[in-house]
Amino acid sequence: MAEETNTNRDVRMRGFTGRALVDDALRWVDEQSKTLPGETIAFNVAHGRVLSGGVSSPLDVPSFDRSAMDGYAVRGTETEGASDYNPLGFPIVGESMPGHPFSETMPPGTAVRIMTGAPVPTGADAVIPAEYATETGETVEITSTVSPGKHVGRRGEDVSANSQLFAAGRRLRPQDVGLLASVGVTDVEAVRRPRVRLLITGNELVVPGNKRGEFQIYESNSSVLAALVHRDGAELESLMRVEDDREAISQAMCKPGADVVLVSGGSSVGKEDHAPSILAAEGELAVHGIAMRPSSPTGMGGIRQTLVFLLPGNPVSCLCAYDFFAGRAIRRLGGRSAEWPYPQREVEVGRKIVSAVGRVDYCRVKLNDGRAEPLALSGASILSSTTRADGFVVIPAESEGHAPGTNVAVFLYDSE
Amino acid sequence: MAEETNTNRDVRMRGFTGRALVDDALRWVDEQSKTLPGETIAFNVAHGRVLSGGVSSPLDVPSFDRSAMDGYAVRGTETEGASDYNPLGFPIVGESMPGHPFSETMPPGTAVRIMTGAPVPTGADAVIPAEYATETGETVEITSTVSPGKHVGRRGEDVSANSQLFAAGRRLRPQDVGLLASVGVTDVEAVRRPRVRLLITGNELVVPGNKRGEFQIYESNSSVLAALVHRDGAELESLMRVEDDREAISQAMCKPGADVVLVSGGSSVGKEDHAPSILAAEGELAVHGIAMRPSSPTGMGGIRQTLVFLLPGNPVSCLCAYDFFAGRAIRRLGGRSAEWPYPQREVEVGRKIVSAVGRVDYCRVKLNDGRAEPLALSGASILSSTTRADGFVVIPAESEGHAPGTNVAVFLYDSE
Repeated sequence: MAEETNTNRDVRMRGFTGRALVDDALRWVDEQSKTLPGETIAFNVAHGRVLSGGVSSPLDVPSFDRSAMDGYAVRGTETEGASDYNPLGFPIVGESMPGHPFSETMPPGTAVRIMTGAPVPTGADAVIPAEYATETGETVEITSTVSPGKHVGRRGEDVSANSQLFAAGRRLRPQDVGLLASVGVTDVEAVRRPRVRLLITGNELVVPGNKRGEFQIYESNSSVLAALVHRDGAELESLMRVEDDREAISQAMCKPGADVVLVSGGSSVGKEDHAPSILAAEGELAVHGIAMRPSSPTGMGGIRQTLVFLLPGNPVSCLCAYDFFAGRAIRRLGGRSAEWPYPQREVEVGRKIVSAVGRVDYCRVKLNDGRAEPLALSGASILSSTTRADGFVVIPAESEGHAPGTNVAVFLYDSE
Repeated sequence: MAEETNTNRDVRMRGFTGRALVDDALRWVDEQSKTLPGETIAFNVAHGRVLSGGVSSPLDVPSFDRSAMDGYAVRGTETEGASDYNPLGFPIVGESMPGHPFSETMPPGTAVRIMTGAPVPTGADAVIPAEYATETGETVEITSTVSPGKHVGRRGEDVSANSQLFAAGRRLRPQDVGLLASVGVTDVEAVRRPRVRLLITGNELVVPGNKRGEFQIYESNSSVLAALVHRDGAELESLMRVEDDREAISQAMCKPGADVVLVSGGSSVGKEDHAPSILAAEGELAVHGIAMRPSSPTGMGGIRQTLVFLLPGNPVSCLCAYDFFAGRAIRRLGGRSAEWPYPQREVEVGRKIVSAVGRVDYCRVKLNDGRAEPLALSGASILSSTTRADGFVVIPAESEGHAPGTNVAVFLYDSE
């Protein structure tokens, strides 16, 4: 924490006297956000979910020796010498289809017609692909040699019974779900998705679609936060809109049922900024005021098991505070990587990026000819700065910014 | 196309005599997959969707001059000379709250208490932040000077009325949805999501959770494909499982209602591989057999307006063929970037990656100490090769592979 904190005094209309360091606030987030417990879910809705326990295979895959090609099962040694100039003929004694094997032992000197995935008959040890074989009546002529074992998938070669498929913490890929299916695993234990409540305050706000008075503004933070929460793997527990009324905010903040409450607006030092003192009274206001721009009025704390983030109402501040702190907590609760889901790219600075020593800056940049340039109009209230920008640069507290020609890491808003 | 194609002859149990080049197949995909028409959707479900038309703002944001800080509205020139050693006092004549402005003209020599986002009163032109002000009774003492315009957000500075917010083709970010909300736009025209049918064939297949006979295998491709289709922004029109029966497959393939039909299994030259000849009979089999490994038995074509992809039943081939061709078509239909949604990273080759000239290889690799090594066991049927791998390398047709120490682009399966 910074040398002086704001968590034990009422800062309304007095201003912050000291601000927490971003790194200290991040440390608090990491201490408070431990992976949630697991729940049982069906394998076919498990894509993207994080395993809370390891998964082992109950069976061998394949569970029998199978053909890797369409063609003819043979004894490999019997094909020696076969070529285009010396085709060898084998009587076809039957066929093996997927799910319908050739049930006898294949006699020496014969072949069995076989399809990809079908069981290789007892006696056979190789498959000659259809490309090198011509059927004439009851006989197949082959024009190539195969060594024993060729084009045969051995029992258990993909997965052997009792081996571990995935360790706890694995975020399941599409093919992971397929592997679970292929061993017949129908349920897995996955980290429960965090339940997030959005608590939107502000008497001046109007829900889009409703009539707006001259000095009212359309409420936009809930749409941004809902999308971010969804992106980070959480589910929306509820969306509550309340007046700037102490009792109403307190009730909405304290109501059980959410792992995380995101309060938009009323987080700062204004006369109507009730949220910080409510949080301090009902639970713990651990951080209030952070040495960063935008989002300096951000607060965070907890009420019993629920993490509460006080996000500034200014839309850029709200987005930035979510991404720095609340999103990180949500991803960690859900067992995901704490890191930003933004692709990172090293680029040259095209125009000076200015910051002040002592605070972290979140600077929206545009890429012009592959060089990063800060947006001219980029106040905390200018939401279009985040739609016109290609991404952002984080300037650490100890830096004054980046000079043109130097390299800087840009986090890209779009992942493709 | 390659010198000889397989689209006009029955290749069952004869093998492919020529294979299309990957680039030619990709060209066919691009020719056939044009962006779908738009549909009207609500702004609050628009995150991740692609706009089919541009969106302009019906209003200015802000729609009035507003305060960017909590503090006191003043005339900037009247604050000249204020400092810690020379605090200046201003009588407070009222307050402006968000949604509740100070309705009169502010007299010279006075101040109005103001909150972030509240309208700046007529007469005032700057805001002094609460940090530099102390209220005593009816007066506020300020200890800093502000120039006119400071901490005031001008009407229209974020968005001006009638300006374009987004062009057609924009994939909406969380903050884009917020910008739509902030200008009161409740509906947008977005590219319709492609409707994808999964058609799973194979008599040997058992749905996980059901009883499996000794030579049956659990069906896994539908789970992988459903996850991939969802990832690529499409919706599952239906999941149909049919016997290896010509009539049943034909009916399922031809039934209207899907933009894309993905057929899993029965795409090759085996005796029970009906799908290619059905597609040729009912529509067009444009490509069948591709010079690549795995997935060489892939086919594609169309029946009226529906694109049909014949994906090999082997799970790795199915995944690979989806990613090369079907996923590309689906992303293009949905207006997304055709490119793979896999992050790409340049890494050094740790162990030789072997390929054959004349075919494209999809080689699963593991990163060991940051160096790419091909997986030892990586046949088309070994699904675990795609779960053990960190990503894959594509070796072009003209290359024999990559020697240790050279650099290669790895596509990472995980995006974080």
